[in-house]
Amino acid sequence: MANMADKKMVDAITSMEEDFAKWYTDVVKKAELIDYSSVRGCMILRPYGYAIWENIQKELDARFKATGHENVMMPLFIPESLLQKEKDHVEGFAPEVAWVTQGGDQPLTERLCVRPTSETLFCEHYAHVVQSYRDLPKLYNQWCSVVRWEKTTRPFLRTMEFLWQEGHTMHETAQEAVEETERMLNLYAGFCADALAIPVIKGQKTEKEKFAGAQATYTIEALMHDGKALQSGTSHYFGDGFAKAFGIQFTGRDNSLQYPHQTSWGVSTRIIGAIIMTHGDNNGLKLPPYIAPTQVAVIPIASHKPGVLEKAREMTDCISAFCRVKLDDSDQSPGWKFAEYEMKGVPLRLEIGPKDLEKGQCVLVRRDTREKITTPLSELKAAIPRLLQEIHDSMYAQALARREEMTYTAATPDEFRKIAQEKPGLIRAMWCGEEACEAKLKDETGVTSRCMPFDQTPVGDVCACCGGPAKKLVIWGKAY
Amino acid sequence: MANMADKKMVDAITSMEEDFAKWYTDVVKKAELIDYSSVRGCMILRPYGYAIWENIQKELDARFKATGHENVMMPLFIPESLLQKEKDHVEGFAPEVAWVTQGGDQPLTERLCVRPTSETLFCEHYAHVVQSYRDLPKLYNQWCSVVRWEKTTRPFLRTMEFLWQEGHTMHETAQEAVEETERMLNLYAGFCADALAIPVIKGQKTEKEKFAGAQATYTIEALMHDGKALQSGTSHYFGDGFAKAFGIQFTGRDNSLQYPHQTSWGVSTRIIGAIIMTHGDNNGLKLPPYIAPTQVAVIPIASHKPGVLEKAREMTDCISAFCRVKLDDSDQSPGWKFAEYEMKGVPLRLEIGPKDLEKGQCVLVRRDTREKITTPLSELKAAIPRLLQEIHDSMYAQALARREEMTYTAATPDEFRKIAQEKPGLIRAMWCGEEACEAKLKDETGVTSRCMPFDQTPVGDVCACCGGPAKKLVIWGKAY
Repeated sequence: MANMADKKMVDAITSMEEDFAKWYTDVVKKAELIDYSSVRGCMILRPYGYAIWENIQKELDARFKATGHENVMMPLFIPESLLQKEKDHVEGFAPEVAWVTQGGDQPLTERLCVRPTSETLFCEHYAHVVQSYRDLPKLYNQWCSVVRWEKTTRPFLRTMEFLWQEGHTMHETAQEAVEETERMLNLYAGFCADALAIPVIKGQKTEKEKFAGAQATYTIEALMHDGKALQSGTSHYFGDGFAKAFGIQFTGRDNSLQYPHQTSWGVSTRIIGAIIMTHGDNNGLKLPPYIAPTQVAVIPIASHKPGVLEKAREMTDCISAFCRVKLDDSDQSPGWKFAEYEMKGVPLRLEIGPKDLEKGQCVLVRRDTREKITTPLSELKAAIPRLLQEIHDSMYAQALARREEMTYTAATPDEFRKIAQEKPGLIRAMWCGEEACEAKLKDETGVTSRCMPFDQTPVGDVCACCGGPAKKLVIWGKAY
Repeated sequence: MANMADKKMVDAITSMEEDFAKWYTDVVKKAELIDYSSVRGCMILRPYGYAIWENIQKELDARFKATGHENVMMPLFIPESLLQKEKDHVEGFAPEVAWVTQGGDQPLTERLCVRPTSETLFCEHYAHVVQSYRDLPKLYNQWCSVVRWEKTTRPFLRTMEFLWQEGHTMHETAQEAVEETERMLNLYAGFCADALAIPVIKGQKTEKEKFAGAQATYTIEALMHDGKALQSGTSHYFGDGFAKAFGIQFTGRDNSLQYPHQTSWGVSTRIIGAIIMTHGDNNGLKLPPYIAPTQVAVIPIASHKPGVLEKAREMTDCISAFCRVKLDDSDQSPGWKFAEYEMKGVPLRLEIGPKDLEKGQCVLVRRDTREKITTPLSELKAAIPRLLQEIHDSMYAQALARREEMTYTAATPDEFRKIAQEKPGLIRAMWCGEEACEAKLKDETGVTSRCMPFDQTPVGDVCACCGGPAKKLVIWGKAY
């Protein structure tokens, strides 16, 4: 029975080598992260999926507050006239918003869009509350959901509604705003490394790829298992463009009237897609320990034998003082449970049976390496936190090694095209700075510029598209 | 200068005796809880207002999780056909929802309403995930905002969009569902007492006042400073009505196919209105210590004198280990700061000046009583938590005493009408059970049935409206 159940669980996931997209969908469904609803393109986050987001939120929010940011709530709706105040911004977003045209049984005199992002609402508020340089900086953030009317959707990666945080800040000088943009990008990169075990590349987006209305967009890019890149967080510098459009002015230190300088930055539930596709394997999810809803699954073996269940309960209570632990005392077989918690990506499994009881020990099994570590019960308090850190470090190292292995350098247009066709992964190559070349590479190879990395050590001197003189190092790749 | 500034701060609030509604609006604006936006009926929660909500959320969420509930996220939109599945529910809500009719530049084939509440979405999901009695109970909750197309709005009390939590649970038996409904009502009442220092009356709504689609609605009612009642949280028992409408069935312990029994329960940002109007006074907000964003405001006196600012900083660091503390080292006068933190309802103010330095002491000032307590610096760690608890207890006792003072008993229709006209507050009176009598009392006196309290000790034997035989004790009052 146990074997059949195991087999059923494992058979149920398509292997990533066979069909990566199907593997992904199988994992999100079978690990019970999401459910679909009758609302096209919207997902339901089930308890296990939402608990991952809660842990992400808790960790990011603490980092935001430690850097002086405060949370607020802006309205869900943006009147059409407000959305239209900044020209580039409305052009970028108007085609993909949901419009409310009726309230109760009355048609509205002005339609309201459901916020796709909230720059316009923050700016309207800042115009009320920023009067003097003493009111600056304003460092606000909001946790909410936004809506973008997407044609094709995939859980976490692209959905009509998604959860995110959006930071919106106002500063006295351009320099302070630029520093904020960089600070938040570094905060995101540190969070990805420390909490998610995901190595990211930090860089600046090209003109073509930047945010609607921004002067500069910075990004963190991660490499997925299938060689595609995933933009995992962005930070935008706006200059004073919105401030001028919204009439936000303050009296400066020299008593002159000035426009403040603005940033915005965001991370969304998309990052859960990055976790799945960076770490997952053919047994399912593999969660980084610091955001895993359950860090240790306790599984009693032969739990009908005297003392086993009692000891398992006692251990669970004891462990809960220093990590997130769950006892599974259901009547499913141990084999079924092993497969289940592997599927759900629980970093450590703790097995305890009659023989372990006699010896005062248990068996810890790592999800990432499947290594079994027999551990005296008296040492669990030291062993579990140490193992969680080891798992985290090892997951990070493995993801980094894979990214390095799958990152290629192309010095000439010929090399670029050959690599783009034959090797999934990232390409480091030079660029002349012309948007036409970016567009051409995309047409020919499906590859887009992911970012101009902060480390600009050149890898050649000609543009990977036209062969003309190179200006910038760019990381290229196919992307989600 | 200090005196003028003080005067200006205090003058700026209308007194509650003069105009209670204006007092309320002054407080929410001047304590910087909210700002208005160009979106009609929607409010912006500013950092101070949102921080109160965050503390409420943290405390309630911990209580939900301790009672086995899990958080999820449902979509923002409900397709019209889904909303229509339960007849009473759609009749109650359809007139007051916002309709999305256009996505990008395409008209939608089916309009979507912005959720006014999410019973329908939870039911659709439960139909997917509830198959066996082993899947029950399902104890889900969601933190989100909802939209109701209100004609007249007031910050916190009635807004088009508001933040709330909505719990939605499914149970094997009717009895378990009823128990859940009661458990959550008790949880809310306990939260109001322990965290908000608000005494509430627990009871059941009459048929007329119950939630659209529910079999029974339970409520907690609080009394505001002006004698009006505020419904502060509700808990609904649905029976299996929605389950039947949505085809949710499970295989029971006896192998028969059964419908589960459902509850929902919610508390919203409205509760912040209750905090303001239960505790506030003519100096502004008076926040209950356990949800106050700042529990202690540290104000250096004569901060240009040597050592004062250094000591104030040192004390702030030290205090931050056991409570939420804020140092105000700005160049405003101490008098301005006193008025400012009174306005913002900070429970304790800590003053420290040159003379205190010499004596190794400081002065603690209670917001609720304005009592000044000279305290040795070495005793702050014990004194501050004790004082916060004393302030909490005293605020609760004061609110309870006021409610008792403003609660009247009417044994006859004549008495009822006299009290309703002359005395702001609550009225305990008997009722024959006829909806027509409820409607008549409302027409004649503006008073509605707040609840049938759980304590049904009778106060007479005739209906306060018609004089006929009484069936139920009801708490009556004018309400927000």
